[in-house]
Amino acid sequence: MSFNKQFVLAQRPKTNIVPGETFKITQKPAPTEADLKDGQVLLESLYISFDPAMRGWLDDKRSYLPPVQIGEVMRALTIARVLASKSSKFAAGDIVTGTLGIQEIGILPEAQVEKAFDLPSNGKLTDLLGSLGTTGLTAYFGMTKIGMPKSGDTVVVSAAAGATGSVAAQIAKIAGARVIGIAGGEKKRKWLEEELGLDVGLDYKAADFKQKFKEATPKFIDVYFDNVGGEILDMALGRAATFSRFVMCGGISQYNAETKAGPSANFFNIISQRIKMQGFIVFDFITEYAAARKQLAQWLGEGKLKREETIIKGGVASADEAFQTLFNGGNIGKLMVEVKSSEQSPRL
Amino acid sequence: MSFNKQFVLAQRPKTNIVPGETFKITQKPAPTEADLKDGQVLLESLYISFDPAMRGWLDDKRSYLPPVQIGEVMRALTIARVLASKSSKFAAGDIVTGTLGIQEIGILPEAQVEKAFDLPSNGKLTDLLGSLGTTGLTAYFGMTKIGMPKSGDTVVVSAAAGATGSVAAQIAKIAGARVIGIAGGEKKRKWLEEELGLDVGLDYKAADFKQKFKEATPKFIDVYFDNVGGEILDMALGRAATFSRFVMCGGISQYNAETKAGPSANFFNIISQRIKMQGFIVFDFITEYAAARKQLAQWLGEGKLKREETIIKGGVASADEAFQTLFNGGNIGKLMVEVKSSEQSPRL
Repeated sequence: MSFNKQFVLAQRPKTNIVPGETFKITQKPAPTEADLKDGQVLLESLYISFDPAMRGWLDDKRSYLPPVQIGEVMRALTIARVLASKSSKFAAGDIVTGTLGIQEIGILPEAQVEKAFDLPSNGKLTDLLGSLGTTGLTAYFGMTKIGMPKSGDTVVVSAAAGATGSVAAQIAKIAGARVIGIAGGEKKRKWLEEELGLDVGLDYKAADFKQKFKEATPKFIDVYFDNVGGEILDMALGRAATFSRFVMCGGISQYNAETKAGPSANFFNIISQRIKMQGFIVFDFITEYAAARKQLAQWLGEGKLKREETIIKGGVASADEAFQTLFNGGNIGKLMVEVKSSEQSPRL
Repeated sequence: MSFNKQFVLAQRPKTNIVPGETFKITQKPAPTEADLKDGQVLLESLYISFDPAMRGWLDDKRSYLPPVQIGEVMRALTIARVLASKSSKFAAGDIVTGTLGIQEIGILPEAQVEKAFDLPSNGKLTDLLGSLGTTGLTAYFGMTKIGMPKSGDTVVVSAAAGATGSVAAQIAKIAGARVIGIAGGEKKRKWLEEELGLDVGLDYKAADFKQKFKEATPKFIDVYFDNVGGEILDMALGRAATFSRFVMCGGISQYNAETKAGPSANFFNIISQRIKMQGFIVFDFITEYAAARKQLAQWLGEGKLKREETIIKGGVASADEAFQTLFNGGNIGKLMVEVKSSEQSPRL
């Protein structure tokens, strides 16, 4: 009999996720082929996605998904391998993506599983979660459907060294915009300029950040792609150009706050500068995923889209470490936990 | 020689406009026909418009119009009569609208003056500033271009007993929406239900306002037309429906605040509920004024659009009283100061 480690919600965090307290790791006998019903697949996890939005799934409030319940396995996107199948759509050995959660082995209905699509020649298996996965798609739809940067526009992206921000910033560069990326710390700042090729990288922890932010936006901001909320959002509102678009993607600065804050002093620039501020969730665009992935894969193959990833090895047992890394700004690019490595990458 | 009373900015208010301090009334020899240059008209003021947005013109910051400077006549929209003209477009006696400011007599270039359009049979001269003027147009464009209510939608309008809000709420009713209007005090609340025919009137000063607000929006809010900002905006975000539209028209609760606040606890519903929050200024739609006025005039003529007005008699000397009335919520409908009454209403 094999065992299944699961990362289970033990109590709702009031602010930060507390290692060993918010979640408990449990170990139970793993499900087997014998447990499968028609149309289901048995999956083993290879990589688990860690994203700031997951923090929101822990709050017991109306949102775009129901909250994870106490005692449930934490929801997470994963890359997995089919161990056994009672679905005509999948066979043992298939590499798939699905919301298997933070556990080693589990069962999903076929409708919640997607076969891995073919990757470009320089693609990696983990791109299925990252640049070509939900992360890349989030950046793509946010930037192209709401931000809509034109050549010569000034675009500012917060958390630009993060998984979504880094892709969003590069999509704006591809559109011909002047792109300013904001991240925490000199290492990330340099990475934005030197690796991603953004026009300006800004370190929000630097003493002269406000001054540098102003200097970097002499023609104001046409598109602001927000992943952080809080003070930086307020600063961006203060530098917003007339008819600018604010793409509301995330608000990591507020996710762990007991009392959540919105923008303040500059909020009413939304009227005086006629700003369009719009929130979105990637699956609003599910019917356009295929076309978007094709475009992202082409850019990745051409080297126009670079991606970084931070992979924590250690499986489900390292999930607490992964959350701490995520909310302490410890990762550059896409953060994942490796449960089991796989040599098997689907190729174009 | 005749004299011209002017209401002149003496010092910028930090918070509230202070009677006798923020502005000074001066009296100078009035300009005459002899002062006119080619293309200019000499105007005498009949009615002066008082609108919450005027408070924003006093702050020395980047906005949609340059701030009024210390020593300048306060900017204001007016209905005026042409006393003399060196423009081929206007003749003495014409009734016009223009930004003559808070003064009795002044000169404007012809490009800044518009001839009064014909009113429906039940129209009043003051409709040129109110329901068919900038106020009505603001409500019209905000509601139809951004709010876009459909039949059956739940629409909430703040400051619904005000000049703009009352028109906006009625436009939503005409579109077939269920309309909830918010205003301060039982008198206004009743007026919203009994005179305007809104589905629900809410008094934000009532002790049970929060509870009543929730009860009035069981299917959440599809369109929120905001004139107030602050706490009520935050409450509306908390009750926002998925894919709702937030029409950002004004923020009167914040105009006099030394430290301006935006929405707070519920701000990030903008993401989870995919809200589109958009600011606008009426003159963004200047090319569509004629068509919009025609529609508003038709509704007014048919009795579908009701309007109230609060007129303070006393001319320029009562401008301070008018500002106090405006920011203390003393008016229902459009607030104006009468400088000189006129029997002469342009008729259809």
